Amino acid sequence: MADPWLEAYNFAIEIAKKAGEIRRASESEIKISTKSSTVDLVTATDVRVEKIIIGALKEKFGDDVFIGEESASKKGACILTDEPTWIIDPVDGTTNFVHGFPFVAVSIAFAVNKELEFGVVYSCFEDKLYKGRKGQGAYCDEESIQVSDNKDIKKSVIISEFGTDRDRSKVKKICSTMERILLIPVHGIRGTGTAATNMCMVARGSVEAFFEIGIHCWDVAAGAVIVQEAGGVVCDVNGGPFDLMSRRMMCANHADIANRVIKEIEIFPSDRDDHLHIVNPYQAFKLLL
Amino acid sequence: MADPWLEAYNFAIEIAKKAGEIRRASESEIKISTKSSTVDLVTATDVRVEKIIIGALKEKFGDDVFIGEESASKKGACILTDEPTWIIDPVDGTTNFVHGFPFVAVSIAFAVNKELEFGVVYSCFEDKLYKGRKGQGAYCDEESIQVSDNKDIKKSVIISEFGTDRDRSKVKKICSTMERILLIPVHGIRGTGTAATNMCMVARGSVEAFFEIGIHCWDVAAGAVIVQEAGGVVCDVNGGPFDLMSRRMMCANHADIANRVIKEIEIFPSDRDDHLHIVNPYQAFKLLL
Repeated sequence: MADPWLEAYNFAIEIAKKAGEIRRASESEIKISTKSSTVDLVTATDVRVEKIIIGALKEKFGDDVFIGEESASKKGACILTDEPTWIIDPVDGTTNFVHGFPFVAVSIAFAVNKELEFGVVYSCFEDKLYKGRKGQGAYCDEESIQVSDNKDIKKSVIISEFGTDRDRSKVKKICSTMERILLIPVHGIRGTGTAATNMCMVARGSVEAFFEIGIHCWDVAAGAVIVQEAGGVVCDVNGGPFDLMSRRMMCANHADIANRVIKEIEIFPSDRDDHLHIVNPYQAFKLLL
Repeated sequence: MADPWLEAYNFAIEIAKKAGEIRRASESEIKISTKSSTVDLVTATDVRVEKIIIGALKEKFGDDVFIGEESASKKGACILTDEPTWIIDPVDGTTNFVHGFPFVAVSIAFAVNKELEFGVVYSCFEDKLYKGRKGQGAYCDEESIQVSDNKDIKKSVIISEFGTDRDRSKVKKICSTMERILLIPVHGIRGTGTAATNMCMVARGSVEAFFEIGIHCWDVAAGAVIVQEAGGVVCDVNGGPFDLMSRRMMCANHADIANRVIKEIEIFPSDRDDHLHIVNPYQAFKLLL
């Protein structure tokens, strides 16, 4: 087959847009359910939209592997294999969605042989669809997008987020990092509250860099393709190679900007997405037998 | 006359929208000029839009007083008198505008006898026009808006900004304040990079509170009316009465939320907008004679 993933790519675009439209339409009937913390909210729409996305994809691509927040919370780990794999976040920016802050995204990525083939991010309230396919460029709707050509850190705007973890030592490191970046100095620090949209801001040249520790693979997989296809770089927050399951990510318009920001990042430990958590001691005991 | 300021109000709405449309249209031809710091940018459009706004208003309301960033940079101080006074920011969010980050606002407020009569904020890229008139409610386009009814700080999203001043002690206090607020804990901290839009986010219930030290009267005058008319409170960052010329502002959906956030704010000194700066020592010497 000339283009083995074209059908999957087109379907991802279609389903992302459809899911986003449902989300936008249901803005008024937001219902909050609980998760592991009050910050980490899931809405009724969240569940409904995930069902629509996963349902439609499984019907068409039933033999593929699916990785997403909901599947992770059931199985406890996301293992990336060589199989064709969909990495999905039906609502990136749940806190925003619950509060009506205007950045919520649907993020769909697809990997084969552990390599990302394409990424689709639909920013629902902006009504902008970002997409990127390996070797074929990045687009916002039908317009080709490129990263910023500015290589002067002092003329840069950087995005980072405070995240949802309120562990004191992590919060201290995050705030200290922001202080250090401001004092480089930079033009400003922004944050939309959704990693997927933040990465698209880098891809379209609105900001020079975005990094975060604590994100999940489904938050950044699609954005990673889009940034790279828009001419940007994606790496680890220590400057090493990007590891999708590491829960750490830096992306920028240029390696010089990435490396300058990296100097100021106070890294804190975070579990990997592919690390199996055994929360039930009885289950752990059984596994040891 | 039954409604002495209705004509002015309607004209402000018309001119804000017109100015915003010009700005949006000129996004591609951004040219940067220099100001007192690299962060504080002014674009060619900025100047053009201010000319359009001020020109049109002066033609129609030539006897009124005009206060704005450009006028302030010429005269060095903004003195609020009892005269009908227009307080204008043609581009709130200049850094965003230059970088293409999607929050830029036109802000027009009107005061008589030192009291704000109305405020109009046009968020250009969202294409949303916010307006409020004393005693007559607040609107986004033609829809009535209200602040959030959430009084639980732990379920709140707060907006603040890092600002444009890179003085080390100020940056440290701003970052330390953010850290303290995160640890209350709150759902999140956001920032659009424009004070006028941030205040509209409070007015429409997307976030519970926004505060900033270092803003100018033209950044917050219009927003102050809109927040109050949407049922919110506007006060000083120490909980005292709001002083338009103080360069400090806190606004929230409810006094309880405002007061809880205020406990965590590390206040730093800032000049007043109505304080005359004599930058030229020779001029100062002449004034002493």
